[in-house]
Amino acid sequence: MRDGAIDQVVRLMARLPGMGQRSARRAILHMLERKEVLMMPLAAALVEAAERIGPCRICGNLDMTDPCDICTDPRRDAGTICVVEHVSDLWAMERTRAFGGHYHVLGGVLSALDGVGPDNLNLARLISRVREGDIKEIVLALSATVDGQTTAHYLTAELAAFGVTVSRLAHGVPVGGELGHLDADTLTTALNARRPAV
Amino acid sequence: MRDGAIDQVVRLMARLPGMGQRSARRAILHMLERKEVLMMPLAAALVEAAERIGPCRICGNLDMTDPCDICTDPRRDAGTICVVEHVSDLWAMERTRAFGGHYHVLGGVLSALDGVGPDNLNLARLISRVREGDIKEIVLALSATVDGQTTAHYLTAELAAFGVTVSRLAHGVPVGGELGHLDADTLTTALNARRPAV
Repeated sequence: MRDGAIDQVVRLMARLPGMGQRSARRAILHMLERKEVLMMPLAAALVEAAERIGPCRICGNLDMTDPCDICTDPRRDAGTICVVEHVSDLWAMERTRAFGGHYHVLGGVLSALDGVGPDNLNLARLISRVREGDIKEIVLALSATVDGQTTAHYLTAELAAFGVTVSRLAHGVPVGGELGHLDADTLTTALNARRPAV
Repeated sequence: MRDGAIDQVVRLMARLPGMGQRSARRAILHMLERKEVLMMPLAAALVEAAERIGPCRICGNLDMTDPCDICTDPRRDAGTICVVEHVSDLWAMERTRAFGGHYHVLGGVLSALDGVGPDNLNLARLISRVREGDIKEIVLALSATVDGQTTAHYLTAELAAFGVTVSRLAHGVPVGGELGHLDADTLTTALNARRPAV
């Protein structure tokens, strides 16, 4: 019944994050009922994206041009670099429209458990950007996990020699978050970092 | 930053069931990091599926051949037809390996609210299969919803003239289901349909 072609496309689809066999089958059926308006355009868009999008040699962002649009945008502040783990974090930062500097994508965080050392990350390129460029501030936008914070400490130490300001995102109560649902660590951090009410 | 090619593929991806902007972006990033082993093969598989898979003229199943593998399988009982709403229901039935007959995909159920009448469903073809073929039993595997049951009643009345046995799936407690989480209607149905303990 479900023959070669369906089985194969379901199997590939099921490898996407958040998808399983069941949702992949549902997605494929949905597409088979909309071949002209969804299935073929999506296949073509995937091919185009795969062929045209690649990593930026400077920051590691994914873009159609290399260097990427951010690294070449003259309106952005090249003196401030926001360090993120993944391209998805860069996109999340961009959606805030709150950051007007450049980025650096590490490709992950240091992790003794997973065997990720400094050489496995895009670190050397960051150091050389700081050494060669006129960088005033490095903003560390890393996960508030043990590995993320270990990586932040490591970077802070590495960058100390260059006289660059190293900052990190504030920790605290998420906007819209209810205190009752918050873990004790976050609440403690938010209490200790309390600021004057205005 | 997220330019034309990425935006477009994310927008198409987000139209799949169960996907939103967020999960579509995550899926596309996942693929961009696995172009050769996932993105290009998936695009090719989508094209192949779109080109080769179509509805079976007899039962409405989606398959690479027309009539489909099920309708042409000599080991299956052509005298029993299981009527389902969608191809996904047919696949769900097939996964049970508990049914060895043929199928008929209605394409939906009667719905006064949604303006779906008998002419909007694949009903005439079912009647002609029963009229022309040597059909002994029709198994109605329709949703246990008001529209599903309305459709089942309608089909039962329509098929009465042909002297064919019309049955429906049993209702009751789902296997593995906890009574405490079950709605009253299902529990009432299960109680009224109780059978001797063995």
